[in-house]
Parts: sequence; structure tokens; C-alpha cells
Amino acid sequence: MSFAVPPLSKAMLTRFAKLDQKKYRDQEGMFLAEGLRTVRELLDHLPEPDLLVALIVDEGAHESMQWFSGFRGKLYRANREVCARLAQTATSQGVFGVFRKQPGGRFDSADRSLVVALDDVQDPGNVGTIIRTAAWFGADTVICGEGTADPYNAKAVRSSAGSIYSVRHYPVKELATELERLQGDGYLVAAASLDGQDYRSFSDWPERRVLVIGNEANGIGQAVLDLADRLVMIPHAGERPNVESLNASVSAAILLARLCFI
Amino acid sequence: MSFAVPPLSKAMLTRFAKLDQKKYRDQEGMFLAEGLRTVRELLDHLPEPDLLVALIVDEGAHESMQWFSGFRGKLYRANREVCARLAQTATSQGVFGVFRKQPGGRFDSADRSLVVALDDVQDPGNVGTIIRTAAWFGADTVICGEGTADPYNAKAVRSSAGSIYSVRHYPVKELATELERLQGDGYLVAAASLDGQDYRSFSDWPERRVLVIGNEANGIGQAVLDLADRLVMIPHAGERPNVESLNASVSAAILLARLCFI
Repeated sequence: MSFAVPPLSKAMLTRFAKLDQKKYRDQEGMFLAEGLRTVRELLDHLPEPDLLVALIVDEGAHESMQWFSGFRGKLYRANREVCARLAQTATSQGVFGVFRKQPGGRFDSADRSLVVALDDVQDPGNVGTIIRTAAWFGADTVICGEGTADPYNAKAVRSSAGSIYSVRHYPVKELATELERLQGDGYLVAAASLDGQDYRSFSDWPERRVLVIGNEANGIGQAVLDLADRLVMIPHAGERPNVESLNASVSAAILLARLCFI
Repeated sequence: MSFAVPPLSKAMLTRFAKLDQKKYRDQEGMFLAEGLRTVRELLDHLPEPDLLVALIVDEGAHESMQWFSGFRGKLYRANREVCARLAQTATSQGVFGVFRKQPGGRFDSADRSLVVALDDVQDPGNVGTIIRTAAWFGADTVICGEGTADPYNAKAVRSSAGSIYSVRHYPVKELATELERLQGDGYLVAAASLDGQDYRSFSDWPERRVLVIGNEANGIGQAVLDLADRLVMIPHAGERPNVESLNASVSAAILLARLCFI
């Protein structure tokens, strides 16, 4: 290597290792991403260079260090033991990035606007995948209702494939209240529900619309079902379904494709 | 408890613990499912009672034993140490089911038929989720091409949400050869590709069709691209995408919904 990479200090290690807990992510306004692919995807979509706090690479991973050499000043090396302390998933591969959360802030309605709201979506993989899909389909915002996994959880970040900065997202304490606020702003609230009406049967959608996706096992809570303007359902083929339901991020994708293209 | 549950024997433990390896799953024709929800979903969709080999429950999990009491004769208890030896995922919760693989066998074409083919889809979660989605949309078969994760991997089984028996699936050594066989049988092969044509632009689909989904990072291999009748692409919103691509099981879902309903 043609440049010296300093070791990660103990103070930084202590601080970064705590980022596996939401409490510390919130307190520091930072999160930890793991794995070469995930870290590179994030770097590729970084809206501001300052959002990168540190890149930490296993001292044996020379190739990764070459890749990251442009980030000199923020690049640190770590031995296996330090990497093991940072690792939250089985996919860290000795490559870590510490990033600041997106500036975020509340949501200002645009004229034409597609919003996704998550009601108690507990699997971080689903939350990350839905953010990725929402980014692809140009959604403005993902609202994370109560019970929903933190988008900055390491697994969620991995599933979001670098799109964590590409779509605004923010948590709310009471999703029903937030949805009522949006309704007051002219949004139509469509809730995905197995008891709903075939999603293909709705051909008129207003410019401002929210798609609500519910909990993996129990669907959407009563408070949100009660206020929803439409309940939408993805029909199965054949007379009886061969499986109880679709995965939450799969339902979200099929419905988002519909709402995006209509 | 009103009935006696025998402990899992050492011989059975040795045999079942090996089912974390594909080699032994293939040899025994069995697989291991973990977690109360996954095991119950499988039991709910069991086409033949004989496909259940054993239910193994942590001796402290009395409630689960009550649930499973109808399976007396196949129900075994295990202490924490034995459960730890069986666990392949973090979600075992001390509940395991050993099942026989689906009888399977090769695929006989139906008049109207939707087939999914996986080309090097490496993530077991994606493979399981695609099987689940294929089951929902009434696909006949999922063909697992070279490099594709084993559907009987514990994570794939979990993601399939009990649908592992609901849709036929089988591995092939050369996906291109198998697809050519299907083409000879009148199937149209549609391959998902970012270089393809907007999937909504195709309105005529024959009764027999195959959807090919490719590797998470590299897409579909050249051999399959070369023989494909159509390359289909899911467009992003806006001028530039906010993320590189969609997740493989998300792409599969959006395209399957299209091919199922058209």
C-alpha cells in the first residue's frame, strides 16, 4: 500500500460497536453498515461526503483498502478481534462503514406524491427491501409506524441496497394520526389487506396516495383499517390459495408497481 | 401433559443434525424446518401425513407440545443442548420438524402453464420467497438452475411459509438445456433483465410461459439470455433510478403478477 492506514482507536471502537442498538443510533445520529457490497452501495449513493464518518477494514483485506483509498482520512484498519466486536451480521466480511443518518425531517407534500407507510412491519429485511422498492418506484417517503423495525438496523441497511438515502423515511409514534394528517392534505390512504378488494379493480387513483403495508403475521391494525379509504388485496390464482399470504415486501412491490404506473 | 413424550434418541439426533448439509438432505430425502410458525405452516399444508418424520420440541415448551399432541408417535422432546445442536438459524425457538422432501419428479407440461426458473439465485431467502409467490400465483413449477440455493435449506424453508409442498420444484444441472426442452414443448421463455423491454409493453403471452430470474448481483447468465424469447424489464420511476436494481424476489413478484393475470 502506498499510504498508511491508521488503526481504529479504542474510543472509536467503543462508540461504533454500540451502534448495534437503536438507542445509540438515535443518540449518535449514526449507523453501522457491514459487508463490502453494502458499504460500496452506500458510498455510491451518498448525497453528501460528510455523511460518511468512517470506513473500517480488516487489516488483511488489502484489496478493500485499495478500493477505499480515496477515502483517506476516514479509512481505518482493524484486527480480527476488533472486526468481531463490530460485526452484527454474518456478512460483515471485515468491511464496515459508519454513516450519519439522513437529515430526514418531516414530510412536505408534493403535488404528485406516492407515500409508503409501514404498520408494525417487524422484519428488518422487509423494511430495507420496501425502502429499496419505494426508491425504485419514486416514492417520496416511507413512514415507519409503531412496531416497525428501524431502517438503520444493519440487516435493514443491507436489504435497502444503498437506497437508505434515496428515499426519505421517518418514524412516527402513531401511524393513524399521521395518516389522518395526510388525508387532511388530500391523500388517499390505501391499505393492503386480504379482506380488501382486488387491487386491479381500482383504476382511478388521485395524485396523492399512501400505501399502507401491515405486520407480517397480523396485517394492518384496526385503527388504520378504520381510517383507510380503500382496502386493496392481491388475488391468488385458482379457487384456493396454495399458501396463506404473500411476503410483506412482495405485496408492497406488486402494489407499488401498480400505484407508480397508473 | 396427559401423555408421555419420549426423548429424541441419540441416533435420531445424529441423523437429523446432519440435515443442515445439502449432501445429507439429498441422501436422506429429508429436511429440517425450524421455528413454531414455520413448522405449523408446513403441517397446515402437508399433502400426505407420511411426509412428516418427526416433531422435536424443547422440553420446556409445554404449550408447543400441546399444539402438536395430535402428532403423538412422531413427537419427541429434547433438552436445550440437543436443541442447540439441531438449530441452524436464530429462529428455532426450540421447535423443529423433520419432513420428507416433496416426491417431486420431472415436470409434465399442462395446457396452460406458468413456470419459474431460477438462474444462480443464491440467497435462500429469495428462493423461499419466490416459491411462496409462485404458489400464490398458481405457478406449476419452480426450476432451480445451477448455483441456485437449495429450497430445503432452513432459511429457504422459512421464507417459503409452508408452500414448499404447494409448488413443484426441482434442480437441474444445466438450466439452458432444460429451457430449450420447454421451448420445444411450446413454452415462451421470458428472462428478467435490466437491458430488457418494459414488461408492460408485452400484451400477448402464450398459454405456456417461463419466467427466468437471475443472480442477485449479476443477473441472468449469457447462455440463458441467448435463448430467451423475450427480455423483460421493470422500469423505474423518474429519469434516473434512485437505486441500482430491485431485489430478485421483488422482481419475480411483479413479473409473476403480470404473467398470472394476463
